[in-house]
Amino acid sequence: MSAILEGTPDKRLALVTGRAYPQLATEVAACLGTEVLPTTAYDFANGEMYVRFSQPVRGADVFVLQSHTTPINKWVMEQLLMIDALKRASARSVTVVAPFLGYSRQDKKHLGREPITARLMFDLFHAAGANRLVTVDLHAAQEQGFFDGPVDHLTAMPVLIDYVRNHVPMSNATIVSPDAGRIKVSEQWAAKLGNLPLAFIHKTRDTTRPNHAEAHGIIGDVQGRDCVVVDDMIDTAGTICEAVRTLRNAGAASVTLVATHGLLSGPAIDRLRDCGAREIILMDTVPVPQEKRLDNMTVLSVAPLLAAGIRSVFEEGSVATLLEGLPEDMRPRNIYA
Amino acid sequence: MSAILEGTPDKRLALVTGRAYPQLATEVAACLGTEVLPTTAYDFANGEMYVRFSQPVRGADVFVLQSHTTPINKWVMEQLLMIDALKRASARSVTVVAPFLGYSRQDKKHLGREPITARLMFDLFHAAGANRLVTVDLHAAQEQGFFDGPVDHLTAMPVLIDYVRNHVPMSNATIVSPDAGRIKVSEQWAAKLGNLPLAFIHKTRDTTRPNHAEAHGIIGDVQGRDCVVVDDMIDTAGTICEAVRTLRNAGAASVTLVATHGLLSGPAIDRLRDCGAREIILMDTVPVPQEKRLDNMTVLSVAPLLAAGIRSVFEEGSVATLLEGLPEDMRPRNIYA
Amino acid sequence: MSAILEGTPDKRLALVTGRAYPQLATEVAACLGTEVLPTTAYDFANGEMYVRFSQPVRGADVFVLQSHTTPINKWVMEQLLMIDALKRASARSVTVVAPFLGYSRQDKKHLGREPITARLMFDLFHAAGANRLVTVDLHAAQEQGFFDGPVDHLTAMPVLIDYVRNHVPMSNATIVSPDAGRIKVSEQWAAKLGNLPLAFIHKTRDTTRPNHAEAHGIIGDVQGRDCVVVDDMIDTAGTICEAVRTLRNAGAASVTLVATHGLLSGPAIDRLRDCGAREIILMDTVPVPQEKRLDNMTVLSVAPLLAAGIRSVFEEGSVATLLEGLPEDMRPRNIYA
Amino acid sequence: MSAILEGTPDKRLALVTGRAYPQLATEVAACLGTEVLPTTAYDFANGEMYVRFSQPVRGADVFVLQSHTTPINKWVMEQLLMIDALKRASARSVTVVAPFLGYSRQDKKHLGREPITARLMFDLFHAAGANRLVTVDLHAAQEQGFFDGPVDHLTAMPVLIDYVRNHVPMSNATIVSPDAGRIKVSEQWAAKLGNLPLAFIHKTRDTTRPNHAEAHGIIGDVQGRDCVVVDDMIDTAGTICEAVRTLRNAGAASVTLVATHGLLSGPAIDRLRDCGAREIILMDTVPVPQEKRLDNMTVLSVAPLLAAGIRSVFEEGSVATLLEGLPEDMRPRNIYA
Amino acid sequence: MSAILEGTPDKRLALVTGRAYPQLATEVAACLGTEVLPTTAYDFANGEMYVRFSQPVRGADVFVLQSHTTPINKWVMEQLLMIDALKRASARSVTVVAPFLGYSRQDKKHLGREPITARLMFDLFHAAGANRLVTVDLHAAQEQGFFDGPVDHLTAMPVLIDYVRNHVPMSNATIVSPDAGRIKVSEQWAAKLGNLPLAFIHKTRDTTRPNHAEAHGIIGDVQGRDCVVVDDMIDTAGTICEAVRTLRNAGAASVTLVATHGLLSGPAIDRLRDCGAREIILMDTVPVPQEKRLDNMTVLSVAPLLAAGIRSVFEEGSVATLLEGLPEDMRPRNIYA
Amino acid sequence: MSAILEGTPDKRLALVTGRAYPQLATEVAACLGTEVLPTTAYDFANGEMYVRFSQPVRGADVFVLQSHTTPINKWVMEQLLMIDALKRASARSVTVVAPFLGYSRQDKKHLGREPITARLMFDLFHAAGANRLVTVDLHAAQEQGFFDGPVDHLTAMPVLIDYVRNHVPMSNATIVSPDAGRIKVSEQWAAKLGNLPLAFIHKTRDTTRPNHAEAHGIIGDVQGRDCVVVDDMIDTAGTICEAVRTLRNAGAASVTLVATHGLLSGPAIDRLRDCGAREIILMDTVPVPQEKRLDNMTVLSVAPLLAAGIRSVFEEGSVATLLEGLPEDMRPRNIYA
Repeated sequence: MSAILEGTPDKRLALVTGRAYPQLATEVAACLGTEVLPTTAYDFANGEMYVRFSQPVRGADVFVLQSHTTPINKWVMEQLLMIDALKRASARSVTVVAPFLGYSRQDKKHLGREPITARLMFDLFHAAGANRLVTVDLHAAQEQGFFDGPVDHLTAMPVLIDYVRNHVPMSNATIVSPDAGRIKVSEQWAAKLGNLPLAFIHKTRDTTRPNHAEAHGIIGDVQGRDCVVVDDMIDTAGTICEAVRTLRNAGAASVTLVATHGLLSGPAIDRLRDCGAREIILMDTVPVPQEKRLDNMTVLSVAPLLAAGIRSVFEEGSVATLLEGLPEDMRPRNIYA
Repeated sequence: MSAILEGTPDKRLALVTGRAYPQLATEVAACLGTEVLPTTAYDFANGEMYVRFSQPVRGADVFVLQSHTTPINKWVMEQLLMIDALKRASARSVTVVAPFLGYSRQDKKHLGREPITARLMFDLFHAAGANRLVTVDLHAAQEQGFFDGPVDHLTAMPVLIDYVRNHVPMSNATIVSPDAGRIKVSEQWAAKLGNLPLAFIHKTRDTTRPNHAEAHGIIGDVQGRDCVVVDDMIDTAGTICEAVRTLRNAGAASVTLVATHGLLSGPAIDRLRDCGAREIILMDTVPVPQEKRLDNMTVLSVAPLLAAGIRSVFEEGSVATLLEGLPEDMRPRNIYA
Repeated sequence: MSAILEGTPDKRLALVTGRAYPQLATEVAACLGTEVLPTTAYDFANGEMYVRFSQPVRGADVFVLQSHTTPINKWVMEQLLMIDALKRASARSVTVVAPFLGYSRQDKKHLGREPITARLMFDLFHAAGANRLVTVDLHAAQEQGFFDGPVDHLTAMPVLIDYVRNHVPMSNATIVSPDAGRIKVSEQWAAKLGNLPLAFIHKTRDTTRPNHAEAHGIIGDVQGRDCVVVDDMIDTAGTICEAVRTLRNAGAASVTLVATHGLLSGPAIDRLRDCGAREIILMDTVPVPQEKRLDNMTVLSVAPLLAAGIRSVFEEGSVATLLEGLPEDMRPRNIYA
Repeated sequence: MSAILEGTPDKRLALVTGRAYPQLATEVAACLGTEVLPTTAYDFANGEMYVRFSQPVRGADVFVLQSHTTPINKWVMEQLLMIDALKRASARSVTVVAPFLGYSRQDKKHLGREPITARLMFDLFHAAGANRLVTVDLHAAQEQGFFDGPVDHLTAMPVLIDYVRNHVPMSNATIVSPDAGRIKVSEQWAAKLGNLPLAFIHKTRDTTRPNHAEAHGIIGDVQGRDCVVVDDMIDTAGTICEAVRTLRNAGAASVTLVATHGLLSGPAIDRLRDCGAREIILMDTVPVPQEKRLDNMTVLSVAPLLAAGIRSVFEEGSVATLLEGLPEDMRPRNIYA
Repeated sequence: MSAILEGTPDKRLALVTGRAYPQLATEVAACLGTEVLPTTAYDFANGEMYVRFSQPVRGADVFVLQSHTTPINKWVMEQLLMIDALKRASARSVTVVAPFLGYSRQDKKHLGREPITARLMFDLFHAAGANRLVTVDLHAAQEQGFFDGPVDHLTAMPVLIDYVRNHVPMSNATIVSPDAGRIKVSEQWAAKLGNLPLAFIHKTRDTTRPNHAEAHGIIGDVQGRDCVVVDDMIDTAGTICEAVRTLRNAGAASVTLVATHGLLSGPAIDRLRDCGAREIILMDTVPVPQEKRLDNMTVLSVAPLLAAGIRSVFEEGSVATLLEGLPEDMRPRNIYA
Repeated sequence: MSAILEGTPDKRLALVTGRAYPQLATEVAACLGTEVLPTTAYDFANGEMYVRFSQPVRGADVFVLQSHTTPINKWVMEQLLMIDALKRASARSVTVVAPFLGYSRQDKKHLGREPITARLMFDLFHAAGANRLVTVDLHAAQEQGFFDGPVDHLTAMPVLIDYVRNHVPMSNATIVSPDAGRIKVSEQWAAKLGNLPLAFIHKTRDTTRPNHAEAHGIIGDVQGRDCVVVDDMIDTAGTICEAVRTLRNAGAASVTLVATHGLLSGPAIDRLRDCGAREIILMDTVPVPQEKRLDNMTVLSVAPLLAAGIRSVFEEGSVATLLEGLPEDMRPRNIYA
């Protein structure tokens, strides 16, 4: 008899989800050829929450998916509770999957005595017990550096570009950045779509109230062009609808809006309905419920992208390859079609 | 000219508050002879929050007061944002003041694969940048050990006992614990009120649903007695109202309810109105709004206790002395009287 | 030739033990179907200790068993030395196995300027390099939250209850808590043994001297009953022997004592011999040497429980299942029978 | 005689410097009304370095100034050695002062398997023992969030704008961004100088070779305008000289170059001499030695700005106020004039 | 009324001691002009310990003195308990004072799978909450680097040399190292006493049993010389008594033994009595009880040295100056004279 | 379909190298039967560096080899960059391989206010993300304890002794330590070569300038002997060449120099050429370029030793066995022969 007992190692993936957008987890699981691991979760009367996993996760690589949609503070806290429970249940690793990372816009101090909420989010996930993070199109790519560990920063750009190339007239198109801060991304779009012309809206943003802006004018040529306005997210849609109007006033032939994150908060739907855009193209990193759908809105599923990212992490392949080319199973799919 | 520049050290206290219960901060500030340091705080349209302090806090010992009332996840997150901002603004120290610490009831794993949410709360505050924590009547005193630093664990017991001694007939009183887990505290009450008799309600709790319980019977003698039921909190009031009924059925002369934290969630007010209690005595560690007030409810201000705790931390005196005796300025005060 | 060299992963368990109670490790190893990995350990003349492992542990999951018996400070320190050596020898993981966790009674501050020794123990194990901890019946379940990682908190309750059910007359039994703080556990015993009646001894403890107590009286009905007094540990046996006498004076038919940890310090044996208990039932989480054995004492082996816990950790199964039911190989076994 | 010994607290500032650019430290000390604390530093024959402070620093707030100029790896390492020595010598706090933070351009992963060198720099300073960091015009403001503590991020913009307003004809001026990534900063310049017109150079950068770029064209109107090209740094000057030529080819009346960090590496001076710029305006965050001076180059001293930042940290005032207005003692001063 | 409350900072030193050698603390306090802060400490029956401080320490710089004498594991653990209590009582800083640091001899791995106990000790003190450490004559000076913070490494060499210079005939003296590992220290002694001749005992040490050694011969000239054998500690005295015999056999005129730490374990006293040494000179970093005293033994008080080190830490002066010269109040004092 | 997805675990080793001495990595890879994983690395114009790995490393155990040769600060920094990139690319573990660890000589404070650069190096590697460290013949073995994790401290002694035994006349040999600090190692050499006689050079070192020394004399007998001088490194060769001269003046028959690390800085080659040594024997832990070769210099390859160490770490075997015996594939090989 030996003093060393040999065992059989194995490697197990489990996907769990919070209650913010469970359908997305179901779709991701389907892409992975598995099922979502059942979780008990409910609210206590005073608003505290309870979570528990119904099956053992000891030794598993667990991915915790939560969409940071409204009520965002509740869903972030639920995800933190799930991470704590997984850590104490001896999961081998815990990976946060946050398709849209809440609070990621406050990524630096504009004024003294402000928080850097994006960093705080990474710190909270780390404190709860997360080892790794998978997310899509952060407000600033620099935020990867906020986490003391691997961050798989996926981009929906290949999926969105594939859709735009096939659904928007390209011969007469111009890529437009809705403000000065996103021109670099617009340059990438213009290059990938065949060195399209570029323009941007020049305006002054009130740094303390990100949802309010004051447009000034257009730099670049848009008259008679089919404009494609590219942004990372549409929140209250104030800025981007103002951009549509400015472009139309300047003689644009059409204006198409593209963004990864369709938060569509507050007055967003009313503004988008009236702004005169030709089409609005979004990913479902947060749920877009039936009552927010417009006839000219296309919502593409982010599930294949997340599944590909999770599979790369689990199989220890390269996430980098996700950024180039677009495999067949990741072709754009309109979740409302 | 020297290579060492001498400066004048000083020591500054600042009190800031979240938006959950600002009146409490105002009262605490008044007890301290200062004012609440102004804070800008509002919600973005998607539910994220913005906070900023209007005056420098560099080098100050800052106390961040937040009441963990509904919507609790939002107020916890706001407090975390404030701590992050203070850390980045070079506060000398940041002390969390949480009169009622949310999520503190889940202080151990009853079943596998549960979180220990109480520990998680301390971890989150620590990760955001808190150095110290002041709180009142934790669900279990062991939770002090969840923080890797000083915790000033205040108790409202002296204030509550002082009130009870003067407002409840003592000659015929019996202290009653509403369940087996709180008998130790009831023993302390009984001892401090002159070795009063003791009883407890024997019941089985369904460990997965803390708000539901099934009463069994009374152990100890309550017939014809003026019963004082002591608990740490009244949440949905199911357990405690069942206790009142059980006691009255057993022939209690009267039943008085005493608790530090009056969460009064969901059906609590209806239950309390109908349960037949003589008087309900609470501290305002969470706000008790007008619509939740009952005629036989007394809400005592926790502000003097918090102010005394903060002063001890700041002046580096002993918090331990707060636990013995009751200084004049901490005498019970009914905030609705 | 490739730039990546493939290897054959494996998974190896090693069990090592300190010198406090090596027989227990031998029994645990037997339950696991392995042997204890040989360790060199001795004292230097000034009381410092030397430890070294005789075989490689690189890449192994190592379990470090030590019983925190007298001289407790020495054995704790030896376990810390072993953990440090394992960390530096590249063990894949190090799990502390502490059947009785020393210093776990001081789990909160009763007075100002005291340590929280239970938290300190977890901090020391963590600092030395432990990743995980397996223990049995902590003084307070909240202590799980003192460790920043997984704690497998086993309970001997199923083993003890199985024994009691078969060796104590149940038809006339009452479960008695020796003080107010343990009534919750007594309720669980009463429920599991078929809703037996419940009683408790009401007394005042001098908070600065845990071994001294002053009994007051019994709450609940014990006359003519076969009382089973349940506690987590028997240290100097002062409290529990006082309880036996109080129960007998109150007319109890018989009194059986049950506890997980039989520390049996100082005057314990003399007190137990004279107290009039029918039977004293303990687990061997600390060794019960021949000279401390009484005729009416039963010591059940904790080895099967520890082995089951270790196997669950190693095979990444669920420890939670240990808490329900009692597999055949964990049936109570009297180590002196 | 008491058991507590009272002492006299004091508060002492010390400024130390590495060997990269000692003149800057001398100037900063002069602005502060102190002297640089003497340091012994030299190289061993194999390139390792030795540092030692000549006077006690115990209890002092020490600021460690180093300019990250060529040979940059050596000067970074020297600063790390100084921090380690200060930590071990019981300095009360250690603040890194890095007017130009080396490696700050690699602030995110462009491709898989790259480092985030900017984050690494903050991690190294933190590991060596730094508590705080003062720097000027980071490549991306998000990098503040890379440090787990206060970062005082100063900007030279007020100094540079004050100089430009008084030395460049404003009536006919246009602010030009040399690439898409800096337009946001250009917008701020345009706004502060009275809503000047804006333009930018549209080009594609080879993401793997930051010093190489390929210009494409101008977006915005520059014909006959006095162009002011604003960038954070001038390294090899390839991009910015290409911008000058592009602007002149497009009919610009004059082109003025402004940047905070004048690294002036490799071919920079030759390129700048020949590019046709009207004036080149820099701060001395890295030394600009005599042999790199051009007749049309202005180098403004960064010392007053650093001194103001250090004084705010030490006196626990607000650094935020540095960002608004420009006190008399911070008016632009040409160090070569 | 302002939002910032100004306070009066102060600075307070408190000295506390464990029970290992309280007389030393009393002497240190006398040197400092203060008293030892009273502590309650006792053992529970099972060997666990209780400690509590009788007066507030909030905001004080507390020095925790413990002599690591037999039973060493108990006294180390007591010191850890004291540190934990001080951290939780909001001491401003906690400094370990360990005149002889236990376990410091195992400072590296001689064989695989050994601990590095010296590093472990620093890790444990750090985990318990210590910020700083004061100690005397570590076994290897490299151990300073084991602590992630300031270590004030005092040396008793000036005190011992001052005594030796005045009590041992110098005209004919040779400094002898008892083994190869201590020759560097012997060189320093030889230099400070006026470039005395040097010799050493050449032997092979069994690396697994530090207390056993086998002498081989003398390298250097000792015939007719007054030999002074210098070591850091005398534990079982086997090596050093063998050295005395070897020297006497080689014709040494006399042999004087000098060491900082007189552990005097096991057979030490018998060996020393019989070895033929002229005089044995020690510091009292561990207590030398009456029964271990020999007529030719001199024990010098380490209290003035410790007091000077503590004063430097508290007053933020330079400990470095302690290493040069010998102030009047630190002149050697025989505690038995 | 199950909620748990099973995967196939594997275990992959990758060896990467910095640019300091790539030939060594190629040799190590050959010994391991693999290839060096390709890395892109170059300098930017201002001296910053860029690194990227060309193939996925996710899930691999990566060994990062860098020789700390001139320019040492650059190569250390490059290694730190590589570690950061590996951590962010999800390597399973990162092991630093530093055949000669730079800055390891400053392993303690000789004077106040110095750094402990050896500890700093370990801290920097840890901060960048290294889990483990493999190195050869540290200046002091105590430095293993500077890392909070496993350090595999290899020694070249068996290789060097094997060579010396076969190439130096042993019948008349004496082992000589060049200074007091290395006699312990010399004792080990003497013992392993058959209890050879021992001597050492007695000198005073100026503690602030390690490269300067002042010889005094020889202790031990060297006349007519074939002296073998053993040191850990030859830097500027001042000390060791002085030793050769001293030995020759004292009548040594021949002097052979042996050292693990041949830094050969500054005047070293000139000094070695003229000093009169019979043979100089080194390992290539740093490269010994053609221009530094002398006719009587032998450079043995360290690659087999490093490969054996790496293989032990990867295959989770015992490094300890490397220290005893010398397998065939590790026999000394002159890289210039």
